[in-house]
Amino acid sequence: MPKRRSKSSANPKAKQPKSARKGLLERLAEGPVIGDGSFLLVLERRGYVKAGCWTPEAVVEHPEAVAQLHREYARAGADVSQSFTFYASEDKLNFRGNQAAKKYGVDKINEAACSIAKGVADEYGTLLTASLSPTPSYLEGKGKDAVQAEFKVQTEIFKKYDVDFFLVEFFPHLEETLWAIEVCKEYGKPVVASMRIGPDGDEGGNSPGKCAVEMAKAGADVVGQNCHFDYTTSLKTIELMKAELEKEGLSPYLMMQPPGYHVPDAKKGGMPELPEYPFAIEPRLLTRWDAQDFARKAYDLGVRYLGGCCGMEPYHIRGVAEELSPERGGRLGEASEKHGMWGASLKQSGMYASYDQKVGKDYWMKPPSTGRPYSAALSVPFCGGYAHGDEK
Amino acid sequence: MPKRRSKSSANPKAKQPKSARKGLLERLAEGPVIGDGSFLLVLERRGYVKAGCWTPEAVVEHPEAVAQLHREYARAGADVSQSFTFYASEDKLNFRGNQAAKKYGVDKINEAACSIAKGVADEYGTLLTASLSPTPSYLEGKGKDAVQAEFKVQTEIFKKYDVDFFLVEFFPHLEETLWAIEVCKEYGKPVVASMRIGPDGDEGGNSPGKCAVEMAKAGADVVGQNCHFDYTTSLKTIELMKAELEKEGLSPYLMMQPPGYHVPDAKKGGMPELPEYPFAIEPRLLTRWDAQDFARKAYDLGVRYLGGCCGMEPYHIRGVAEELSPERGGRLGEASEKHGMWGASLKQSGMYASYDQKVGKDYWMKPPSTGRPYSAALSVPFCGGYAHGDEK
Amino acid sequence: MPKRRSKSSANPKAKQPKSARKGLLERLAEGPVIGDGSFLLVLERRGYVKAGCWTPEAVVEHPEAVAQLHREYARAGADVSQSFTFYASEDKLNFRGNQAAKKYGVDKINEAACSIAKGVADEYGTLLTASLSPTPSYLEGKGKDAVQAEFKVQTEIFKKYDVDFFLVEFFPHLEETLWAIEVCKEYGKPVVASMRIGPDGDEGGNSPGKCAVEMAKAGADVVGQNCHFDYTTSLKTIELMKAELEKEGLSPYLMMQPPGYHVPDAKKGGMPELPEYPFAIEPRLLTRWDAQDFARKAYDLGVRYLGGCCGMEPYHIRGVAEELSPERGGRLGEASEKHGMWGASLKQSGMYASYDQKVGKDYWMKPPSTGRPYSAALSVPFCGGYAHGDEK
Amino acid sequence: MPKRRSKSSANPKAKQPKSARKGLLERLAEGPVIGDGSFLLVLERRGYVKAGCWTPEAVVEHPEAVAQLHREYARAGADVSQSFTFYASEDKLNFRGNQAAKKYGVDKINEAACSIAKGVADEYGTLLTASLSPTPSYLEGKGKDAVQAEFKVQTEIFKKYDVDFFLVEFFPHLEETLWAIEVCKEYGKPVVASMRIGPDGDEGGNSPGKCAVEMAKAGADVVGQNCHFDYTTSLKTIELMKAELEKEGLSPYLMMQPPGYHVPDAKKGGMPELPEYPFAIEPRLLTRWDAQDFARKAYDLGVRYLGGCCGMEPYHIRGVAEELSPERGGRLGEASEKHGMWGASLKQSGMYASYDQKVGKDYWMKPPSTGRPYSAALSVPFCGGYAHGDEK
Repeated sequence: MPKRRSKSSANPKAKQPKSARKGLLERLAEGPVIGDGSFLLVLERRGYVKAGCWTPEAVVEHPEAVAQLHREYARAGADVSQSFTFYASEDKLNFRGNQAAKKYGVDKINEAACSIAKGVADEYGTLLTASLSPTPSYLEGKGKDAVQAEFKVQTEIFKKYDVDFFLVEFFPHLEETLWAIEVCKEYGKPVVASMRIGPDGDEGGNSPGKCAVEMAKAGADVVGQNCHFDYTTSLKTIELMKAELEKEGLSPYLMMQPPGYHVPDAKKGGMPELPEYPFAIEPRLLTRWDAQDFARKAYDLGVRYLGGCCGMEPYHIRGVAEELSPERGGRLGEASEKHGMWGASLKQSGMYASYDQKVGKDYWMKPPSTGRPYSAALSVPFCGGYAHGDEK
Repeated sequence: MPKRRSKSSANPKAKQPKSARKGLLERLAEGPVIGDGSFLLVLERRGYVKAGCWTPEAVVEHPEAVAQLHREYARAGADVSQSFTFYASEDKLNFRGNQAAKKYGVDKINEAACSIAKGVADEYGTLLTASLSPTPSYLEGKGKDAVQAEFKVQTEIFKKYDVDFFLVEFFPHLEETLWAIEVCKEYGKPVVASMRIGPDGDEGGNSPGKCAVEMAKAGADVVGQNCHFDYTTSLKTIELMKAELEKEGLSPYLMMQPPGYHVPDAKKGGMPELPEYPFAIEPRLLTRWDAQDFARKAYDLGVRYLGGCCGMEPYHIRGVAEELSPERGGRLGEASEKHGMWGASLKQSGMYASYDQKVGKDYWMKPPSTGRPYSAALSVPFCGGYAHGDEK
Repeated sequence: MPKRRSKSSANPKAKQPKSARKGLLERLAEGPVIGDGSFLLVLERRGYVKAGCWTPEAVVEHPEAVAQLHREYARAGADVSQSFTFYASEDKLNFRGNQAAKKYGVDKINEAACSIAKGVADEYGTLLTASLSPTPSYLEGKGKDAVQAEFKVQTEIFKKYDVDFFLVEFFPHLEETLWAIEVCKEYGKPVVASMRIGPDGDEGGNSPGKCAVEMAKAGADVVGQNCHFDYTTSLKTIELMKAELEKEGLSPYLMMQPPGYHVPDAKKGGMPELPEYPFAIEPRLLTRWDAQDFARKAYDLGVRYLGGCCGMEPYHIRGVAEELSPERGGRLGEASEKHGMWGASLKQSGMYASYDQKVGKDYWMKPPSTGRPYSAALSVPFCGGYAHGDEK
Repeated sequence: MPKRRSKSSANPKAKQPKSARKGLLERLAEGPVIGDGSFLLVLERRGYVKAGCWTPEAVVEHPEAVAQLHREYARAGADVSQSFTFYASEDKLNFRGNQAAKKYGVDKINEAACSIAKGVADEYGTLLTASLSPTPSYLEGKGKDAVQAEFKVQTEIFKKYDVDFFLVEFFPHLEETLWAIEVCKEYGKPVVASMRIGPDGDEGGNSPGKCAVEMAKAGADVVGQNCHFDYTTSLKTIELMKAELEKEGLSPYLMMQPPGYHVPDAKKGGMPELPEYPFAIEPRLLTRWDAQDFARKAYDLGVRYLGGCCGMEPYHIRGVAEELSPERGGRLGEASEKHGMWGASLKQSGMYASYDQKVGKDYWMKPPSTGRPYSAALSVPFCGGYAHGDEK
């Protein structure tokens, strides 16, 4: 019987003082670490985030909804509770008519985000982190000092909540990524850095290999990719990163946090340029079995920090945790009590005659039908890139 | 500007004593009433419900998760908070090795479900209801008294929580439906009844028209269908019901609570016999625009109680509410603050060049691509029906 | 070993005087009779027929191309050589700027068509026939005499070439069909009649059953459907015809000549209203295995005259003949020498490693991929119907 | 009005003695030259070629069928009549139980092929050619002399029929290609050479660029690719060839003869390893508009010899000719008399209301539906490669 981690009893860490819990690097040394999933797109569908701005004022407006999602990821098997500070730099909260900065203030939003995540981390024994993400200031060419000043407003709050590690993510430019890493490194905690790039590299023409090497050299303990391309495409990105890192004799941990969608038709601009994004993208959602497939292939490639970005939901994270359970000492999240591997719970029920046949990896890994006879498999993406006239 | 209902201020009902709020029939007389969405499949994906049994012990185990989902539906614009009492008859909680009855007891589960929903109904001014669903006792041929005894255990609790109306749903046999209605009618509250049938009728060979007529004659104030077939197919079912009701001179309100999936390939056994059900069904998920399409077509056909069954999520219910906002005096749910009609919020953001083109009904009603080049549009369903050897 | 019919030796009929060959009704009494395939669409793709007019002046302009196609059908296993007289009534050859009547004359076209087909029939021992098809005169409301006068111009030529039976086909109106049958009946030969209708019936509101019954009562020895709906849909049409014929105590032979395409999305107007018709319809082409599936299902339903309409090519007719070989005393067409059942010829070659796996019905009956990730399964048909302002 | 080439009058070349006709290189100097299409797969569907062996004994058994197909390509607008000598080396005609060599002899088959093509070339003024293709002797490692001896048996016959140029095609190994070119160069006529390779290069690990350069250095006047990958993929192959040729300062004419199917899912082994090949591949057929798209993109890339390989039919070659008509002085094949650009002939007919809307490039370039709701877009190819145990 696989062991299940439970806040009530099975997980002794929950009862331990934080100082006694293993940190990120210790955990990585032992085996794969599981990140959590999507907040923006999931909370958009739950009614708390506005598409377009994609800023996290929900942490102030509806903390109970954010906390609930944190709990779901922790129960799914995530080792990490990532404060919902995405796009919470002050310039972004003020960007293009966004009222979030004015209404709540950058500090209040970052504090609320950290506070909510900390509550869940304490309850479930997960690692607390918070992330920096791209700033409008960078695109407007305001320079390193201005950009890092934006970052520091956030990292000071992260420090106050004593995050276990710093996360730098979703950057399309290597330069800004390195500035972010530099700021985070000042706090003496592990730094994890991922860029939203595909096999073609970043917006500045740097290859994935170059990006990985530079992030590692800047001191990131974990490097990789998140978002914008599906896991199949992103595995290629990681392969390119890995090859270059090896060539340079560098060996940071590798991470992947791909989105929860099949977007093989995305071009260099990534998923957001697909015509279905963000309001008709559900047919592309990964199944839980796709999530398991991702986990296995990423692990086999050497990835040790595996989580999800846009659209990756609790059942996907549970899939990752279930797939990697053998590599994690049989550990499973609490939510696996409500799930059986490869459909086993159906067999138990026996309600429909067909349930008996719906068990097993062979059965569930077959490509699922879409129920959509008027829909094509692929789209022609827009290729206009960013609208900021002021982008470099 | 459309008026938004808000618990804080805009919705005066929330502050009113319950006795002052309008009841179901009053609301139906004024215009369309919006039901809530799926609990089973949505909470399964969130990690709280076990596929196969599909019973609602989450109300005891994780009331915060159930309450959160109720809030999401209320915020989306639902008029109804439906206690999560589905499949909560004692025989089902005990069925085929299910430990829920033994572990918690039928009373505790039904009480918890009603209590959670009541809390949200009081907060948001929604109507409180609770549902009866099919019993194993019926399939085992135990007869009317035994089946109605199962129902009464539940309805006595519903009564204790003073539900605004009784709901009878998901029945595949007209006979059991009528027994359930009979039990509910004793309480002197409105009764809403829907069957999980398609255009071919119920398991006993009764046509949709016959079912509707009999439900109405038995005293159901609202009759219709829920689950098992997608909205396109279910519109045909309702059309058949409506024609027969008119022929008989009956005029109950009509209801539809279809699942949140495209399942045009389902045969008489419905969605559960599709090979993708329930673990690889995400590619079939409705978009929010599909939900609007459902709402418009159902309303035009005369349906006045519109909600969702398996897989219908908060963003779908928001879609229904947004589509019918003109028919509801401009009313919208709170969650529409985080949404713009037909993608308008993207335009506001202007982040991507393509965002400007992603606005408008014409844009979003195009069939979305699936991102799945190895997946076919349709499946060949299993046709084995129920596994109960003891089914009549 | 199945026997192969060959013009050179195996088929003794070819050497026999025509009077010694079995006629249509004798052959039908023995087992299924195989019609030939498409001329219009196949010769359009070969460069000899103009889409839009769809008239058969190729018989005068390029007799060698028409003869070659006749030979291909005879070699494939067809029992019938159907003169290419489709749409060769004088009014159609003159219709809307068509120059065919003026350039060649109705007599010359019908004579050439019969002469070419007769040559092949004599060579291969097939039955000679020629067809009447709908006239513009009918749509223009010119009345029975005018329409029958058009028909008689053609049938007199058919008689001159001593056709083995008369064919009446592709009619969308029962009334005109009956007028055509009446003309044909005068010659004392068997009459075969098929309408281009689906399960919804003809343009005048007559059900398929009504059409079949009336055709039979008018003296048609074989009745059924051709064109406009795919074989899956047309099987339903035939089922309706059969039921009504049985109810009336009538037992004509049944025929099906469906098109060579999958068009499940066609509405009442049939295949021509699909957006892909006629110039982008190739992705819908039946495979040879689809043709076998058609043959088996049609035979099992009681159909005894099986051929093809628009787009049905020689390899489809060969598929029909191969499928029904057991019912035809093991008989196969010559072209089966170049084919092995269910891919057997690949195994013989052994060129690719995969060839060994590409054998057998289970292998080949799997739905084939389309190679078209940007194409949807279904289309929304136009529903404008015919453009003739003068249609009744 | 575009000029149409016609055997009867418009094409004076037909009446000219052969010596007066322009040769291949003269024509290429003037503009694009159009090759013909598929014989193997097209004649397989017409009932004259056996899949698996894929040898051309039809030239002896049914010369009328082969001649007819030649005429169709000439009428479509092809400049070339390519004798059906594919796989007609003696070792292949004897290979693995193939009886063709024993039954007819290698000489008779090559003579018949050349004689038939010459007849059509004389009639239509097309250029006569004949091709060499891969030999089993090469795969069996018999060495250069043995392989070239096989080739010379064929080329001596080609010489006897005074082909206008020699064609070397479908080779998967650069080495054998160069041996074939060497043999052909002895005759002092232009040599055209194409390999069945994709962007990954040949079986021996040579890149497309390397292959092109070596073919050009060996004296091929025209180099390129044919078969095995669809035109979209093959355009990338040609791009790689072109870049390397330019780097080397070489400027042979470029050619493309891709198959008539969409096979984006083919891996290195090409189209034959797809599960649908060769008996269920129809849904992948190019439309005529796809053929025009190919022609335009290939021309724009600099390709000047454009024809088709497996599955490319007369209507595809007509499409190529129509697309490049402006580049060819307005010249069109005879068969364009039966066709209107972008559907214009439908408008003329006006038969259906929808015909008016079915005109124009925008209309027809939309991805066509497949009519196949149970079929996926892509397949997983077999990857076993060739079955010859004796392959190097």
